[in-house]
Amino acid sequence: MGQLKAIVLAFLLVLIVPAWSQPSAQSDLKALLDDLVAANRILYRQGVVDGFGHVSARHPSRPDRFLMSAAKAPGRVIAEDIIEFDLDANPIDGRDRPVYSERFIHSEVYKARRDVNAVIHSHSPTVVPFSVTQVPLRPIHNTASFLAPEVPVFEMRKAAGMTNNLVTNGARGKALVETLGDRPVALLRGHGNVVVGPDLRRTVSRAIYTEVNARMLLQAVMLGGPITYIDPEENKLIESGRGTQITGHSVDRTWQMWLEEAGR
Amino acid sequence: MGQLKAIVLAFLLVLIVPAWSQPSAQSDLKALLDDLVAANRILYRQGVVDGFGHVSARHPSRPDRFLMSAAKAPGRVIAEDIIEFDLDANPIDGRDRPVYSERFIHSEVYKARRDVNAVIHSHSPTVVPFSVTQVPLRPIHNTASFLAPEVPVFEMRKAAGMTNNLVTNGARGKALVETLGDRPVALLRGHGNVVVGPDLRRTVSRAIYTEVNARMLLQAVMLGGPITYIDPEENKLIESGRGTQITGHSVDRTWQMWLEEAGR
Amino acid sequence: MGQLKAIVLAFLLVLIVPAWSQPSAQSDLKALLDDLVAANRILYRQGVVDGFGHVSARHPSRPDRFLMSAAKAPGRVIAEDIIEFDLDANPIDGRDRPVYSERFIHSEVYKARRDVNAVIHSHSPTVVPFSVTQVPLRPIHNTASFLAPEVPVFEMRKAAGMTNNLVTNGARGKALVETLGDRPVALLRGHGNVVVGPDLRRTVSRAIYTEVNARMLLQAVMLGGPITYIDPEENKLIESGRGTQITGHSVDRTWQMWLEEAGR
Amino acid sequence: MGQLKAIVLAFLLVLIVPAWSQPSAQSDLKALLDDLVAANRILYRQGVVDGFGHVSARHPSRPDRFLMSAAKAPGRVIAEDIIEFDLDANPIDGRDRPVYSERFIHSEVYKARRDVNAVIHSHSPTVVPFSVTQVPLRPIHNTASFLAPEVPVFEMRKAAGMTNNLVTNGARGKALVETLGDRPVALLRGHGNVVVGPDLRRTVSRAIYTEVNARMLLQAVMLGGPITYIDPEENKLIESGRGTQITGHSVDRTWQMWLEEAGR
Repeated sequence: MGQLKAIVLAFLLVLIVPAWSQPSAQSDLKALLDDLVAANRILYRQGVVDGFGHVSARHPSRPDRFLMSAAKAPGRVIAEDIIEFDLDANPIDGRDRPVYSERFIHSEVYKARRDVNAVIHSHSPTVVPFSVTQVPLRPIHNTASFLAPEVPVFEMRKAAGMTNNLVTNGARGKALVETLGDRPVALLRGHGNVVVGPDLRRTVSRAIYTEVNARMLLQAVMLGGPITYIDPEENKLIESGRGTQITGHSVDRTWQMWLEEAGR
Repeated sequence: MGQLKAIVLAFLLVLIVPAWSQPSAQSDLKALLDDLVAANRILYRQGVVDGFGHVSARHPSRPDRFLMSAAKAPGRVIAEDIIEFDLDANPIDGRDRPVYSERFIHSEVYKARRDVNAVIHSHSPTVVPFSVTQVPLRPIHNTASFLAPEVPVFEMRKAAGMTNNLVTNGARGKALVETLGDRPVALLRGHGNVVVGPDLRRTVSRAIYTEVNARMLLQAVMLGGPITYIDPEENKLIESGRGTQITGHSVDRTWQMWLEEAGR
Repeated sequence: MGQLKAIVLAFLLVLIVPAWSQPSAQSDLKALLDDLVAANRILYRQGVVDGFGHVSARHPSRPDRFLMSAAKAPGRVIAEDIIEFDLDANPIDGRDRPVYSERFIHSEVYKARRDVNAVIHSHSPTVVPFSVTQVPLRPIHNTASFLAPEVPVFEMRKAAGMTNNLVTNGARGKALVETLGDRPVALLRGHGNVVVGPDLRRTVSRAIYTEVNARMLLQAVMLGGPITYIDPEENKLIESGRGTQITGHSVDRTWQMWLEEAGR
Repeated sequence: MGQLKAIVLAFLLVLIVPAWSQPSAQSDLKALLDDLVAANRILYRQGVVDGFGHVSARHPSRPDRFLMSAAKAPGRVIAEDIIEFDLDANPIDGRDRPVYSERFIHSEVYKARRDVNAVIHSHSPTVVPFSVTQVPLRPIHNTASFLAPEVPVFEMRKAAGMTNNLVTNGARGKALVETLGDRPVALLRGHGNVVVGPDLRRTVSRAIYTEVNARMLLQAVMLGGPITYIDPEENKLIESGRGTQITGHSVDRTWQMWLEEAGR
């Protein structure tokens, strides 16, 4: 191939590719924003969040940005509430909308975990008792196998002494992320949890089934005696089937149902 | 009777009977399909299934076939979703609709149990704790007497080693059916249960009251001390009155109520 | 007074009194029937009954009769379902409507207890665990003080050996009423309870707060250690203020609320 | 400044200030009345009150008066039900509307606690078990940190011997207020709680999160072992951030949500 031809080709690519990819990127963003609003309402409807808690997603074409609602009860979030943040948790175009004081949970996770594209912080009611006792939150049900072998607990007092027990700056967020490590879930003592995942829908599913499993495990503890947990080996085999979003299966099946429930 | 007369009569019967019985068979099928869609919605509304779980019925005129929804959250199932399967769990006319990966629970039950005409698999929330502890699920209430003397627990690890803990082939289904034996209910460790019965409505009732009884028994265990269970002898006497579907009584009474509740 | 005058007066009274009192008696009956239908729906809405359970009221002008729905889920009862029964539990004008097989609970209470004008039988979910353990159901809350000092448990096996554990004849009903004695509530082992009272609205209130108290007591037992119960002396003082139905107070206040809730 | 000028100025102020401030006082009162009706419905919708319980607010311009509904189930309260009371619990303009027999809880709190502008009495279901056992109600969650270090329990028998266990006069109210001290919450044994606060919305939030925390603590106790409570030092730091009602944060965020939920 002659040099000229190559230059012309490169030039044409520079012209064509953006025009060809941008609409796709824009529709990716639009779909994600729709899902993000839905995720807020779903988590509320399923009882994972009440007036507090927040959910975010990494920007689909700018990995150094994430998207999250302005400070508002999740069940009331609409598209106009979504704000773009940089990885220091600064709003890009806040337009005087109030922002969550604990947005550093999200920014620090996105900084540290390249594999993560969605983050949920909640006061998921039945995980709180596990955060203040010595009983570890472990999976006893297939749908929450990702909790294997067990969920770590973040203690703010160890990281920052006596505080308001809120993750209101980067240092506290970083300390929390250290406790999280490469896991999908960590508890915050006397506060709630953080749930992360490779995509938004799967992360929503994880947050919901973390609560479901906590309820079931609490009951198993009440029954007494030894408990058979989901084995980490079983978890690997279960999770490998959950990675994809095939119509009618796993995450897709529950997402469609939760979407309908949230609309009622 | 003259031979001719007999031949003519036989000929007429061959002509008439199908024309006379087919509408009946068709209306039986139509009624069963209506009930099957309703059963999906009822089990969802009563909290026995969430996004997962499935319910099937043996084909009314072809005992080597069963009917079950395509892979979908039960609460969203409509008539168009019902697929016919053979007893190896192959869809007869799937038309590219996704199928439940655990359909082998159903096919293996229908193969082994001639007395069974309906099968439900669920993650019935309060039975799960009983599946991972040493406390047997036993009946303490009249409405769940069929659980007497106690419910067996299927352990996939014993049958197939470390797996994804799902009944995704015939061999696993067969192993589960061995644990079930001739009983109406078996638990699947860390997963849920399988409930079977002589007809669809009664099986739905069994699935619901298995969950109700699990909740009550959990509370009785929490109160502490010895528990008085429903005696197997009492169960026989209770079940004999439940066999028929008399208007206003037993299964008919609750079915009408659940139907109304599911419609809301 | 002259004899003639007296005769004329008596004659006039015979003519006038019925014409004057009958509309009142009829409007009493009409009001009671309205309340009875409402009671069915209220008990369903409050979770005291599900598809099973029944509520009756003594006939306002014929104390040897009581009124109760035909066999139907209480939440679906309408005015046309109400049937009049004699005190042997025979329907007076059943018109082929199915009748509850356990109507003898009601007839035997009305026979034995002149102070009782309403009877409820239910599978009130949280009283069942108390019926199969050794932990007596006792009041810990003002609103259920009438349970003081504690609720007796009827064991069908003692009264009638191995049965279907249902009160399906007069003898079983009589045995139950012996356990009840002069109390407002008795439990039926592995089955539910019977709640009685001086009028329908107060009996509905008792059935609801029996369930509420059972939930609270279960939680108190779970917390552990000694429990402070409502003292029988306190109960006397509490109940004396509950006898009347003053607008805005006690039974009237909750009845208006439950009525609204049932209508939704 | 000349004397005449000063007199004229004073005269003008006397004329102008009321005309200028009165509309403000009236709109303050109007806003508070709206909030008071909403508070009744919110507390009902959140399950803090059922047919019983009441909420009041100190009059915004007359600190010796408070506002509370006539005797009625809180969930049914409308603007026309609100009555003004003096600090001896006498209705100012009752117009024959029935009044709560336990209004002395409110009057005695307002008398003794100048810092309090709203009072809630409820049978908050999960606090009752803590009132009849030896397990103190303590905070394990950020949102209920104000319960630190622990909630006192009022025992009517100590204050007034055997009674109907109701705060139906000033003496009983005074005894309760002594138990309350300068805290935000006290339990009433076998009865419920009283919750107070600096303004109505924050007091509603306290009543709701007292119930939420009781549920979580009950579960933590059931899990067993030592429990990590919110430290009083943490509470101080948490509460200091809750004092203000900033749009989108803390009390404002949940109030908007509860308001929407109550309207459904």
